[in-house]
Amino acid sequence: MANITKKVSWSSRGDDSGLAGEGTPLLNGTEIPKPFRQLSGSGSVFRIGRFSTVDLEDDITSEEDPIRGRPKEIPHNEKLLSLKYESLDYDNIENQLFLEEERRMSHMGFRCLEISRWVICGLIGILTGLIACFIDIMVEKLAGCKYQVIKENIEKFTEVGGLSISLILWAVLNCAFVLVGGIMVAYFEPIAAGSGIPQIKCYLNGVKIPRVVRLKTLLVKVLGVICSVAGGLAVGKEGPMIHSGAVVAAGVSQGRSTSLKRDFKMFEYFRRDTEKRDFVSAGAAAGVSAAFGAPVGGVLFSLEEGASFWNQMLTWRIFFASMISTFTLNFFLSIYHGKPGDLSNPGLINFGRFESDSVAYYYYELPLFMGMGAIGGLLGALFNSINYWLTIFRIRYVHRPCLQVMEALLVAAVTATVSFTMIYFSNDCQPLGPEHNEEYPLQLFCADGEYNSMATAFFNTPERSVRSLFHNQPGSYNPLTLGLFTLTYFFLACWTYGLAVSAGVFIPSLLIGAAWGRLCGILLASFTPTSPIWADPGKYALIGAAAQLGGIVRMTLSLTVIMVEATGNVTYGLPIMLVLMTAKIVGDYFQEGLYDIHIKLQSVPFLHWEAPATSHWLTAREVMSSPVTCFNRIEKVGTIVDVLSNTSTNHNGFPVVVQVLDSDEPAKLCGLILRSQLIVLLKHKVFVELARSRLSQRKLQLKDFRDAYPRFPPIQSIHVSQDERECMMDLTEFMNATPYTVPQDTSLPRVFKLFRALGLRHLVVVDDENRVIGLVTRKDLARYHLGKHGLEELQLAQT
Amino acid sequence: MANITKKVSWSSRGDDSGLAGEGTPLLNGTEIPKPFRQLSGSGSVFRIGRFSTVDLEDDITSEEDPIRGRPKEIPHNEKLLSLKYESLDYDNIENQLFLEEERRMSHMGFRCLEISRWVICGLIGILTGLIACFIDIMVEKLAGCKYQVIKENIEKFTEVGGLSISLILWAVLNCAFVLVGGIMVAYFEPIAAGSGIPQIKCYLNGVKIPRVVRLKTLLVKVLGVICSVAGGLAVGKEGPMIHSGAVVAAGVSQGRSTSLKRDFKMFEYFRRDTEKRDFVSAGAAAGVSAAFGAPVGGVLFSLEEGASFWNQMLTWRIFFASMISTFTLNFFLSIYHGKPGDLSNPGLINFGRFESDSVAYYYYELPLFMGMGAIGGLLGALFNSINYWLTIFRIRYVHRPCLQVMEALLVAAVTATVSFTMIYFSNDCQPLGPEHNEEYPLQLFCADGEYNSMATAFFNTPERSVRSLFHNQPGSYNPLTLGLFTLTYFFLACWTYGLAVSAGVFIPSLLIGAAWGRLCGILLASFTPTSPIWADPGKYALIGAAAQLGGIVRMTLSLTVIMVEATGNVTYGLPIMLVLMTAKIVGDYFQEGLYDIHIKLQSVPFLHWEAPATSHWLTAREVMSSPVTCFNRIEKVGTIVDVLSNTSTNHNGFPVVVQVLDSDEPAKLCGLILRSQLIVLLKHKVFVELARSRLSQRKLQLKDFRDAYPRFPPIQSIHVSQDERECMMDLTEFMNATPYTVPQDTSLPRVFKLFRALGLRHLVVVDDENRVIGLVTRKDLARYHLGKHGLEELQLAQT
Repeated sequence: MANITKKVSWSSRGDDSGLAGEGTPLLNGTEIPKPFRQLSGSGSVFRIGRFSTVDLEDDITSEEDPIRGRPKEIPHNEKLLSLKYESLDYDNIENQLFLEEERRMSHMGFRCLEISRWVICGLIGILTGLIACFIDIMVEKLAGCKYQVIKENIEKFTEVGGLSISLILWAVLNCAFVLVGGIMVAYFEPIAAGSGIPQIKCYLNGVKIPRVVRLKTLLVKVLGVICSVAGGLAVGKEGPMIHSGAVVAAGVSQGRSTSLKRDFKMFEYFRRDTEKRDFVSAGAAAGVSAAFGAPVGGVLFSLEEGASFWNQMLTWRIFFASMISTFTLNFFLSIYHGKPGDLSNPGLINFGRFESDSVAYYYYELPLFMGMGAIGGLLGALFNSINYWLTIFRIRYVHRPCLQVMEALLVAAVTATVSFTMIYFSNDCQPLGPEHNEEYPLQLFCADGEYNSMATAFFNTPERSVRSLFHNQPGSYNPLTLGLFTLTYFFLACWTYGLAVSAGVFIPSLLIGAAWGRLCGILLASFTPTSPIWADPGKYALIGAAAQLGGIVRMTLSLTVIMVEATGNVTYGLPIMLVLMTAKIVGDYFQEGLYDIHIKLQSVPFLHWEAPATSHWLTAREVMSSPVTCFNRIEKVGTIVDVLSNTSTNHNGFPVVVQVLDSDEPAKLCGLILRSQLIVLLKHKVFVELARSRLSQRKLQLKDFRDAYPRFPPIQSIHVSQDERECMMDLTEFMNATPYTVPQDTSLPRVFKLFRALGLRHLVVVDDENRVIGLVTRKDLARYHLGKHGLEELQLAQT
Repeated sequence: MANITKKVSWSSRGDDSGLAGEGTPLLNGTEIPKPFRQLSGSGSVFRIGRFSTVDLEDDITSEEDPIRGRPKEIPHNEKLLSLKYESLDYDNIENQLFLEEERRMSHMGFRCLEISRWVICGLIGILTGLIACFIDIMVEKLAGCKYQVIKENIEKFTEVGGLSISLILWAVLNCAFVLVGGIMVAYFEPIAAGSGIPQIKCYLNGVKIPRVVRLKTLLVKVLGVICSVAGGLAVGKEGPMIHSGAVVAAGVSQGRSTSLKRDFKMFEYFRRDTEKRDFVSAGAAAGVSAAFGAPVGGVLFSLEEGASFWNQMLTWRIFFASMISTFTLNFFLSIYHGKPGDLSNPGLINFGRFESDSVAYYYYELPLFMGMGAIGGLLGALFNSINYWLTIFRIRYVHRPCLQVMEALLVAAVTATVSFTMIYFSNDCQPLGPEHNEEYPLQLFCADGEYNSMATAFFNTPERSVRSLFHNQPGSYNPLTLGLFTLTYFFLACWTYGLAVSAGVFIPSLLIGAAWGRLCGILLASFTPTSPIWADPGKYALIGAAAQLGGIVRMTLSLTVIMVEATGNVTYGLPIMLVLMTAKIVGDYFQEGLYDIHIKLQSVPFLHWEAPATSHWLTAREVMSSPVTCFNRIEKVGTIVDVLSNTSTNHNGFPVVVQVLDSDEPAKLCGLILRSQLIVLLKHKVFVELARSRLSQRKLQLKDFRDAYPRFPPIQSIHVSQDERECMMDLTEFMNATPYTVPQDTSLPRVFKLFRALGLRHLVVVDDENRVIGLVTRKDLARYHLGKHGLEELQLAQT
């Protein structure tokens, strides 16, 4: 057995030695503390102090004691790579058990599996659609009540004076909703905060984010997003739908719920990372589809985020789930709205109908649109930069749940106050037409038969505000209203994203963009008052919305398709694409996309599409971890237990080698075995000696591994007696006998390509005698990235 | 050096030994002749008689002498796998030269490359759009003249009698056009026949189809398709656009034309299979986009056909090319139509505007739509079966160019005659409204102010007929007209596909489907005369068109999106998806898709998405070819020349091994070198001895390999003197030092996955001492497929 060290640079977690972590937060790479620099020499090999067993769902502590484990200040830096995340194993473990099962299965059996996959995708679609429907109706009811109460109150006090009471009422109602949502998220399930899109991106990329696809997360997410939207925050309910769809998929496809301790004995074949990840991608697509009524956009989103596993049948299934999801939502919402059969609510956000005639564009408008794209990119980069610093601040100072809830309450109160102030001081009165589509028109100080235009933007759910900006008659808003609204909402939305509430950033982005886009339209029209082309500011609102959203999230193809589908009009394909492209190019020049920023700040080992272009001079020998802990094909139980118990390593994959007996030749690689497999073997005491004595005992089957998936017990919970320690374990049957390998001279891009294309977790590096000399894992590859000054190497740290 | 045999079963080409091929055509596996069965034992290893050097563009003979080389009857069978096709090398050859170049390149250099890629994609889009524009205008002009002449003639003779003269005129005009198109295709470039989609599918799948992306092919394709459509055949101009786009991409991205002998010294970096294939996928997408005005559909088409190499930036570039292509077409067509700025011609086929109001659907119509999908599937399977037998017949009996041209002429004449007869005997007269949109309304025997309804379907380009069926007022066609039209057009289209003319099958399929779909709509409306829901038969025409097209081509996601984009109305997403899904499921039960049938009949080694499900019992040891011809790292020139010249092998990749000096240990794998590389080395005489004597000589660079790409000279054209044969060649610098390998026990699905995901051409199988024991190539994997009776193994044959 080789020795058990790993080339790694790290930071402790505060309570251990205080190397880093206390007092000196790492910001932006400028203040790397001394111990760090000493330890991070890429050549130095040393034993490391205290590592948890990372792979084995380390939430026992964090769930039971979410507060005590946290240090006061967490060192944070986007130049770190956390060791707490593990890879998903997208590569099938082809051991003898697996192969035997596959070989036993008939053609019919595979066909049944295929049908099950379709059934699961149908279920995912239906459930996701129902959840979306539930969220939509609840938000509508709650927000409706709230706005009705406040409207009546305002109307009462407008005449008699004392509108400050209305303000207080509004603020209190908002805070009440946000309090409930905030407490749930901060105390019960912090992973449910935000939109969940960064987490799902990571999951689809192949990173196992703890607790991200649990039932509890789903509950908190759904209730949390209802509270946030009803609480009047500058948030949308669309992002969380994507997360919800993913959780639904992960749950349904496994045919059981570990949280509820129910096993339906269904879909057992799908209990492994490979299948689960495929279904989660379907769930994410179904979520996008329900959120925007964009089934094709959903599929493209899933592809964009995790396409190392693209396959025609899979894509078609994902599309099926998406279609079912949007149809379910549409069907039930149309019943709810009392118009069954009228399928006009394909998504949570409905852009309303853009008729081609009224809002056709001409090709000489394209440069204008691109200019707006550039503005969107600039504003997006500003948004992201502000949010970046805010997030750093939050990580450093606002990490206690009570502080997080208080911040959320503060934002809720400020949002209400600002909105009220804006409405109060606005004197943009518009006539209330007979067929007005304002839900809660506030008269306030306007003349009779008129309403306050600022209130249509602020005193409404964001979805409705977006629709008003797209479709209200020209002249419904005056430019000052729009300008002020853009300004205030921009900062409110920026402050809100990252709070400990469930909330998406799509709708606020669209709203900001629609406001300044409409403003652009109005200004253009005022320059050329005779031309009918600029007549409809709704068109410019749409383009502005696309530009702003593109500038913030920087998605490409999928966002184009989502926008086109949400618009319901294919004609807008070209301008939307040009706008998104410009916004991305301009934005990328200054700052990354919002989701990427948050992923980086979480120090997730995210693999991009390709290795950095300038990394051809690196070879597998340089990037791999070595020396590697290997096991013999027949290994002593004690050795295995010791290795697994050794908290100073976080090894999850162990090459299995075979030694030629009575020879000094070096050992050859013959397989790869995972920690989780060894744990199951130890738990079932699959020892050579016991097998001989208990011949009648049933053989270990794949089912035993599947039953333990995905929450394998930690090694500490398995008792191995002193006698048993002397037994031997034969790994032949259980190891993956044909792991992928690369020679040590392989260039980094080549290693990266293999790793990424196959979704690997461990890649064994061998010499030309087939001896193990290293192991490449996700972190070894994610470490290298292209910074502004060429290739940079991130530090590994246990944050 | 190992010996040079390869486990292979084959059939000779007729002139050699007459083993198979003469007299006993192989149909459907039932009549395998004796010699075949003897040779195809999977275990027997034997030397084979006469193989051409397959990789090296073997069109010198076939171009110069397209007739003499052909045997009278070609044995054909979809259970064969041709040895004449080679793989594209999607894996970069990472030898020292390549790595040095990459390492020398700065970050800025990579950025410039990236910009070049975008520029190329833009050029691809523009050129593809222009070609589409040219085709459209030419067809409109020529067909316009033709129909005008015939119309006048008919009008003249309707009154005076003697309409048979009109018929003859029509038939002669059609035949004239088809004669030109047929001669070009049959005599100059047979690969330009048909729609080209099967060929592009193969190319994107990674198979090198000789001559498929040449300039000459493009010319013949474009002129050919104009002739076919103007010649009144039951064909469309959409399929060929995809092929044209691909050729444009292959040409532009290489920055030179070998046919024109012009080298623009641009884009030299992209002269390798990896880059070229990426661009070709962009070209295919641009073609789809121009054909249907469906940029997203185009991207999805490319993904569906060749997504082993999916990557966000690449997809985004492909989308860019698609958008530019449809915009270019739109822009120039709008100028041509005299309405610059009115962007209403996004594609060659224009479904016209479906307004949501007039043709909304209700969810209880969905089962009806699915029923229509099933009909489409059945009719599609029937179409494909008939075409399958027809294709077999053609391969056996109609393989001489003159026969092919004659068949095309026959079809043209019959088409004209049948159309004329149908129109003549039809008595479906419809009033000619003031705002009719019939281009050439034929009065014939109708009353004044009326026109013959059958003529709107037959006496028109197919695109216009489709649009009429979608949008003409309810009552424009009577059911009998539609029924007869469906019946005749079905058989005409079926007979036409596979002729030696450039022609697509999309539009005929749409037309057939639109006809019976409209018929369904009319019948439904007649059952429930009061309900306004069934009022618009155009909706059913659309669904029928989708069903029929889906039943024939069996594309999934991409076709859905193409249809939705062509319709211009997102509302139809769900019904179109359901219809296509039903059509595919029903159709697949009986017969494969049309393109797959043609690919199989060409015996192309096409790799599907996954290995057959029940192939886990096969391992690399069983599927690989062995023994393998290996070279030493420093090898004698004579040996290399002998191996390359040996016509009994078709080896293109040679593992390089290193022998430990003065030891009897077996040789270890240390690299892989390609035939094309060796040819370049021999041509430049890169011999160890010469290098010493001519120190001043410049070193061989990557440029030399790129200049020779892709038409490497055959080994016969390289002269090596007797002295030089004694020299040594050092392969170290040129071989790929880190080829992908698998252990011999790897299961077939695992080998398949690695091969497919990375787009490999050679995969070395090694034992646990890293010794070469076999080589897996595309044919070894494509051989296994899942038939109706479980796993089947195709025969390798040199057809």
